[in-house]
Amino acid sequence: MVKIPDFNGVFPPMMTPFTLSGDPDYDAHVRNLDRWNKDELAGYLVLGSNSETPYLNETEKLRLIEVTAERAAPGRLVLAGTGLESTRETVRLTNLAAEKGAQAALVLTPSFYSGQMKDDALVNHFRKVADGAHIPVLIYNVPAYTHLMIPVEAVVRLSDHPNIIGMKDSSGDVPRLATLAGSVPKKFNLIVGTASAWYPALLLGVRAGILALANFAGNACARVQKLVLAGKLDEARDLYLKLVPVNAAVTSIYGVPGLKCAASLLGYEGAHVRSPLLPLPEEFRERMKKLLCTAGLM
Amino acid sequence: MVKIPDFNGVFPPMMTPFTLSGDPDYDAHVRNLDRWNKDELAGYLVLGSNSETPYLNETEKLRLIEVTAERAAPGRLVLAGTGLESTRETVRLTNLAAEKGAQAALVLTPSFYSGQMKDDALVNHFRKVADGAHIPVLIYNVPAYTHLMIPVEAVVRLSDHPNIIGMKDSSGDVPRLATLAGSVPKKFNLIVGTASAWYPALLLGVRAGILALANFAGNACARVQKLVLAGKLDEARDLYLKLVPVNAAVTSIYGVPGLKCAASLLGYEGAHVRSPLLPLPEEFRERMKKLLCTAGLM
Amino acid sequence: MVKIPDFNGVFPPMMTPFTLSGDPDYDAHVRNLDRWNKDELAGYLVLGSNSETPYLNETEKLRLIEVTAERAAPGRLVLAGTGLESTRETVRLTNLAAEKGAQAALVLTPSFYSGQMKDDALVNHFRKVADGAHIPVLIYNVPAYTHLMIPVEAVVRLSDHPNIIGMKDSSGDVPRLATLAGSVPKKFNLIVGTASAWYPALLLGVRAGILALANFAGNACARVQKLVLAGKLDEARDLYLKLVPVNAAVTSIYGVPGLKCAASLLGYEGAHVRSPLLPLPEEFRERMKKLLCTAGLM
Amino acid sequence: MVKIPDFNGVFPPMMTPFTLSGDPDYDAHVRNLDRWNKDELAGYLVLGSNSETPYLNETEKLRLIEVTAERAAPGRLVLAGTGLESTRETVRLTNLAAEKGAQAALVLTPSFYSGQMKDDALVNHFRKVADGAHIPVLIYNVPAYTHLMIPVEAVVRLSDHPNIIGMKDSSGDVPRLATLAGSVPKKFNLIVGTASAWYPALLLGVRAGILALANFAGNACARVQKLVLAGKLDEARDLYLKLVPVNAAVTSIYGVPGLKCAASLLGYEGAHVRSPLLPLPEEFRERMKKLLCTAGLM
Repeated sequence: MVKIPDFNGVFPPMMTPFTLSGDPDYDAHVRNLDRWNKDELAGYLVLGSNSETPYLNETEKLRLIEVTAERAAPGRLVLAGTGLESTRETVRLTNLAAEKGAQAALVLTPSFYSGQMKDDALVNHFRKVADGAHIPVLIYNVPAYTHLMIPVEAVVRLSDHPNIIGMKDSSGDVPRLATLAGSVPKKFNLIVGTASAWYPALLLGVRAGILALANFAGNACARVQKLVLAGKLDEARDLYLKLVPVNAAVTSIYGVPGLKCAASLLGYEGAHVRSPLLPLPEEFRERMKKLLCTAGLM
Repeated sequence: MVKIPDFNGVFPPMMTPFTLSGDPDYDAHVRNLDRWNKDELAGYLVLGSNSETPYLNETEKLRLIEVTAERAAPGRLVLAGTGLESTRETVRLTNLAAEKGAQAALVLTPSFYSGQMKDDALVNHFRKVADGAHIPVLIYNVPAYTHLMIPVEAVVRLSDHPNIIGMKDSSGDVPRLATLAGSVPKKFNLIVGTASAWYPALLLGVRAGILALANFAGNACARVQKLVLAGKLDEARDLYLKLVPVNAAVTSIYGVPGLKCAASLLGYEGAHVRSPLLPLPEEFRERMKKLLCTAGLM
Repeated sequence: MVKIPDFNGVFPPMMTPFTLSGDPDYDAHVRNLDRWNKDELAGYLVLGSNSETPYLNETEKLRLIEVTAERAAPGRLVLAGTGLESTRETVRLTNLAAEKGAQAALVLTPSFYSGQMKDDALVNHFRKVADGAHIPVLIYNVPAYTHLMIPVEAVVRLSDHPNIIGMKDSSGDVPRLATLAGSVPKKFNLIVGTASAWYPALLLGVRAGILALANFAGNACARVQKLVLAGKLDEARDLYLKLVPVNAAVTSIYGVPGLKCAASLLGYEGAHVRSPLLPLPEEFRERMKKLLCTAGLM
Repeated sequence: MVKIPDFNGVFPPMMTPFTLSGDPDYDAHVRNLDRWNKDELAGYLVLGSNSETPYLNETEKLRLIEVTAERAAPGRLVLAGTGLESTRETVRLTNLAAEKGAQAALVLTPSFYSGQMKDDALVNHFRKVADGAHIPVLIYNVPAYTHLMIPVEAVVRLSDHPNIIGMKDSSGDVPRLATLAGSVPKKFNLIVGTASAWYPALLLGVRAGILALANFAGNACARVQKLVLAGKLDEARDLYLKLVPVNAAVTSIYGVPGLKCAASLLGYEGAHVRSPLLPLPEEFRERMKKLLCTAGLM
């Protein structure tokens, strides 16, 4: 199995720019990468929930991985979201992603037949994926989209698989994160998946975050971590509290259209969204500007 | 636009047989079709929720449509589930399905970014799909899987599109069905998507059902409709009440593995499920037999 | 045990008029009763969910029962909602209600400690209440308010208790009602608790409804039943479909303030609501008038 | 208005001991108080969610407040849960509680007519209660029981009322707590209502917790706070992580029966629960012992 370093720092689950006609805008993506390469980021997640992944076909997915792997600054980890509903399709896509340069795979919990996705089914799925994958695997728990919360008990069972190296938890449920932190082996990479829980997660010993906010505020997110590590908790908390409302706006409230709007306002290429997502109404742009100003991001 | 007859009668959302190694067993599917052709069915749905559709790749999907269209008895409608999260991918798949013989498309509500899938986004999606599709389109509402309930208001807005000819509602929510029945034009095909609401739906004027149960009890389902039309309500109700517990077992309780188990017990080819679904534990087989006997199906 | 006739027909869960200063307006209640006595109703429910019962103290509750029992037309059943969270308090209130003239008690599922209210706890509660009550007991299932759905299995266990004579199910879940109808003894009074399911329920063999709508449209509700019994299903259905939107307005959409507004428009005394409920904004009155006209109630 | 000091430290939401026959065991309550008086606690909450409050009648409620106020060690705050569904009844009970010695009132969000309990209704309710109450008022948000989450916006509107001095938030939702902390005035007492969020809350600047766990582990809870204040974060976190599984057992998993079992094992008087709660099965006692040992509490 491939060995990769422990996760430490901030990763953007990268938005995918589209042209007006709805095609992936790979050039805009490269320009974003050039800018992100200058931000304090530990690596990149291609094909996360914020990447409009469910709207991409396989060709587009693989091209995005390839472009990212080619352009990422040296030393930065390239992760790819390769989870599909089917076990065998997930293995297949994971290994294609590996060929294109993905160093680890983030695998969404399957959730369509939610009534049947009990512990045993989930454990079986992730073990088979991890067995078949040529790169290390991370579990991805994001109940806001899957309406499924992988039980702590299942994560613990999976945490001793040699090729399952961690989990991204985007539930925002800090008590759950605490329970996980107290239950999995130290070497298991617990990664928080939302900036709304970033500061509390750091104080629970979490060392990495895959944060939508890092699409345009990676440095601020990284600074929260640095302040915590330096013991400057009050400063860390104040910065975090400033980021929380912006994070809500670009995730739960306005979703990916909000994220792309904010990113555009700060000079990244947000560009268009893909249908059935609708562009954000114009009046929202001003509200977003104000939010970014208040947070000191603009 | 293609013109197809109004929907009337029972359609199975066909299960997909897999070999032990996990490949689609097209021969078994053909044998099932030969048997279903003798059941009192109005047509077939390929790639419904009970078909393990989210586990199939595009090649497999198209082959299943093709095989079904070739083998379906003359006069039986062939529907295909072609809904994907992305609008353009849905159009593309729908038109490929049409080429393979699908006569109408059942289009799932997109649901991944559920927070953004408000009325306007849904209406826009379905209109674009209907505009681009070479065959008529039916809306497919199945909140058990999508965690999204398309609002009645959105359905009403869509019901005047010339290429949106109806909706399959699998919510099992009869008051909602009544509201819909009172709100859409007569020509709009309201189809109930679960046998748990079959008898009440018929009494609301619904004339078609796409019913998991019809994978192995199509004749019983058809008989409920005939009895209602003949005014023999007590008989209709008693038969329906017998079917309700079987329906629960093969849907909400045991899901597709339960459906395939029951179908196998009655001589259809249920065969294997695809991972991450797990086969039903052996002890359940006996319980299912008993249920089928009690219902008079065995 | 007291013996009462089987339930048959329509009962209003009576709204409670309040004066502007927030006191129960017993005189207005009597005037409502005088009018309801002329409507085609089988009896009355005092202290239902539409009675603002959680806002009433015990003195007020008992007085409302007393007034109702005194004024109800001869032969009309008087039911009282006496369910409280505690078993012993429920028994106590039930027996006080009996003294004031209640002929049967509608007992809400306890739900505060919802995580602990499993089958055994619920069965134990209802058995103890039925053992201690001097009048017959009906189970009351209303998940919209309790966020708890009593399992069919628990109802079946309770249905053989000699003093538990039925259940009001306000879930609006018709497949569930069908399952119940197929599972409980014939003598067990299944009562539907919402007009949204009235026509389908009648076709399942249900013979009684406790319907918010009956506060001002008792005759229309009764007519649906008569038409069904006379085999005039199309007429019954059309009338029911007209009532459905009005029912939604006075329950799920605008709640008790909506119910009282509609009742006032039709000459009943809706009067004021108790805080924390807020009166309906004025502009809604016009919308309600239109709804009532469309439904042929005005 | 009465002036009370800012909240700082740990408060148990006291369990209520019952005799085998179901009466409140005031003597056992006094013995508990004698022991709690020696624990490092800042005060007491009578009639919280863990007190089986919905099962108590008014006489019992007032007696419990009286006994607590008499027996509480000097300087310890006595809070009482006085929230009822009705605004006027809440005011009445609050003022009776004040007469018996309650120094501040914890007022549950009304929730029965949840569809109508929008911002305006909640704000109006709390303002009226605070206007009429003779003691300061705290908002109490506990969605696990009320199925209602008071919006941050409503809390902000209420936070400038001179007699609304804070809020207990038992949602366990740390990002929400962070949003609140960033939105309300400094003087507004944000109190965390579950030990599952105790350590993260402290790091957000929260200074008080009303914690079920403090019924039998008040010193451990107080120690987490002391360690945080002393900057010993690793020690604080490790202790917190040990407490988390115990907290889950005595709240979400086994509820009040679990809480009383654990308290009994540690020498407090848990005694019996009131029906419809059922006593914990015997086999659980051993599991609880093990949990308490692992956490270092036994």
